[in-house]
Amino acid sequence: MGPSTITRGTNVNITDAEELARTLDARDALAPMREKFDIPADVLHFDGNSLGPLTLRSREVLHHTIDVEWRERLIRSWDEDWLAMPMRVGNMIAPLIGATQDSVISCDNTSINLHKALMSAVALRPGRTEIVIDINNFPTDIYIAQSVADQHGMTLVAVPAEEIIGAISDHTAVVTATHVDYRTAKILDAAAITATAHKHGALMVWDLAHTVGAVPFDARALDIDFAVGCCYKYLNGGPGAPAFIHVAPRLLAESGQPLQGWWGHESPFDFDIHFRPAPGISRFLTGTTTVLSMKSLEAALEIFSGVSMAEIRAKSMGLTRLFVDLFDSHLAARGFVLSSPRDPETRGSHVALGFAGGKALVDQMASQGIIADFRPPDLMRFGFAPLYNSYRDVVALVEYLARF
Amino acid sequence: MGPSTITRGTNVNITDAEELARTLDARDALAPMREKFDIPADVLHFDGNSLGPLTLRSREVLHHTIDVEWRERLIRSWDEDWLAMPMRVGNMIAPLIGATQDSVISCDNTSINLHKALMSAVALRPGRTEIVIDINNFPTDIYIAQSVADQHGMTLVAVPAEEIIGAISDHTAVVTATHVDYRTAKILDAAAITATAHKHGALMVWDLAHTVGAVPFDARALDIDFAVGCCYKYLNGGPGAPAFIHVAPRLLAESGQPLQGWWGHESPFDFDIHFRPAPGISRFLTGTTTVLSMKSLEAALEIFSGVSMAEIRAKSMGLTRLFVDLFDSHLAARGFVLSSPRDPETRGSHVALGFAGGKALVDQMASQGIIADFRPPDLMRFGFAPLYNSYRDVVALVEYLARF
Repeated sequence: MGPSTITRGTNVNITDAEELARTLDARDALAPMREKFDIPADVLHFDGNSLGPLTLRSREVLHHTIDVEWRERLIRSWDEDWLAMPMRVGNMIAPLIGATQDSVISCDNTSINLHKALMSAVALRPGRTEIVIDINNFPTDIYIAQSVADQHGMTLVAVPAEEIIGAISDHTAVVTATHVDYRTAKILDAAAITATAHKHGALMVWDLAHTVGAVPFDARALDIDFAVGCCYKYLNGGPGAPAFIHVAPRLLAESGQPLQGWWGHESPFDFDIHFRPAPGISRFLTGTTTVLSMKSLEAALEIFSGVSMAEIRAKSMGLTRLFVDLFDSHLAARGFVLSSPRDPETRGSHVALGFAGGKALVDQMASQGIIADFRPPDLMRFGFAPLYNSYRDVVALVEYLARF
Repeated sequence: MGPSTITRGTNVNITDAEELARTLDARDALAPMREKFDIPADVLHFDGNSLGPLTLRSREVLHHTIDVEWRERLIRSWDEDWLAMPMRVGNMIAPLIGATQDSVISCDNTSINLHKALMSAVALRPGRTEIVIDINNFPTDIYIAQSVADQHGMTLVAVPAEEIIGAISDHTAVVTATHVDYRTAKILDAAAITATAHKHGALMVWDLAHTVGAVPFDARALDIDFAVGCCYKYLNGGPGAPAFIHVAPRLLAESGQPLQGWWGHESPFDFDIHFRPAPGISRFLTGTTTVLSMKSLEAALEIFSGVSMAEIRAKSMGLTRLFVDLFDSHLAARGFVLSSPRDPETRGSHVALGFAGGKALVDQMASQGIIADFRPPDLMRFGFAPLYNSYRDVVALVEYLARF
């Protein structure tokens, strides 16, 4: 018996669902991972798509960073540990997105890294006049792309995801989209979009904010050019954890970026007045790492060394499938509207429900320790994170919503 | 009796100096501030110009942020506290640089903020063809300025500090320099340089990395246009603490910046696909705040609410004056060369000594818990931070160096 034994639309009652969830949890190989998180007993957390919870390891490492590395070792910690951290963290993220070692680095935030990627891409495709973007992309991506387009006198072609392929032409310098839609969790066809961009000689920048740590991605097999992503969602790096940027190794030597700061220099501690970019991905660094925030991220990433993205994806699909099945049987008739794909193959790790009173309901839930989030106009988003959410969590959520 | 009673070049012996330092410490109104820092008993810290030490308050706040705000409150903390933090922290920094409230915001790193300031300034002076910079500026400032110049087909005019005024012309769009030289601690004439820039219709961007928290600055009286600065030196924000940017209120409404992300939007949580800049200084934000790193900074800044920059400056001058006097009597004959100004009025809060074996000596000192730093080619830098360094610390440092 697996999650697929709950067939769509059957009127599973909650007692049956609880029984089923108990069985699924008992056979869940990832269930022990929850012990690595410090989630309060009175909290049900369905917001891994927005802010991952605290891990025991992050707390432990932060205490060490504060009390030993900063307090005792002071600047000696730069040589002893901190200088290498952006690359070390990048190399921990690389396998999660199918990227080769030394092609990912952690720094800054996602918006800034997207700016670097787009500026770099545009410089690699001089004379081209358009940037193509998913109009349903997270707005900051659109603002950043608009700025890059404006700086170059280019046109930003913003179209719905299903029209991206048709919008790409020989005028396109670069295409950018978010792999998993931040509202609906719909997974875009990365292979087809990337291939079309390349067919037209354009470059491809993927935003993996809702992908990394939840949905497999194979940067190498897809032969993408750039990726950026967020580390405070499914990677549990902590609030505002530094983001990451990936650049295909074949592009590194010719890639520049406008935020060329001392950390991107070939030899930062020479204090040379001429900028010479580092030979590798470090050239995408700018200034000093926010050590405390990155330490928390590095600690949280250790969890991923013991699990595979295939396991994570299998459980993610199990959790969202159970939620959608229970939506059909218990929520559809109560005014909730499924706004995520029904096919788990094209669905990321959260499920969005449209609901007229969604904002008020999410706030009420939060006041009772049930954490979800809300996106205009009426979407309640429920993130299901395989490393700490159980099947029983899913049932408890549906029980709550069904009583509303 | 004050520090000036040690006259230059007199052969003060160390026992006398210890006696004097004891007296000066006893009458130092800032001495009790040291209790707010957690500096190990076996450490002598002369590196406030590079990494300020841990404050008790930063540790306390970080524990609360980890265990309550992140662990328990999760995303609820954004509304409860975190969203307002960049502005709150900016407003704590504002009085330290003589800026008006709501004209400073904390975010990103100094290099990125300098990029925003220069791009913004260049856009405000279309048609002008030159950026003037101090060639002895911290190199990252030069790299960032070079990139902005390259993007606009402009010329970067890099000259020594004393030639800046002569290099400014009606072709100059923007002038940028660091107020306190990172190597020599020489204080530039901010009034004369700013006035000359303005006389030629150019804008002025000051880097206050070695100024803020150590040397008074009056952004309003000087009528500067932009400033950026670093928060992990004399502000003790923690390793890689977020930086800040200041924009003169008269320029805010017309200022844009290329890193226009969702945090700089007038209404970020509308998720509007059109960028509408926030009316105030928030338009210089880009993406999500690194909460842990900024919390540490905010906590450390509390110390400054109880002291004045005039008091800090007076003690800073007392400390560096004592060090220079003891240099004359005990170190000058041993191969050390004073590389900072003799006049305390034009000297910041560190003193640089040239020394052929400087790198090895700084490393050896670090291994013994005496923290200073080194900058090529041969400069040992000793930072004297009025909030935690004592006059006895200065004497202990000279005793060590004199024995070398």
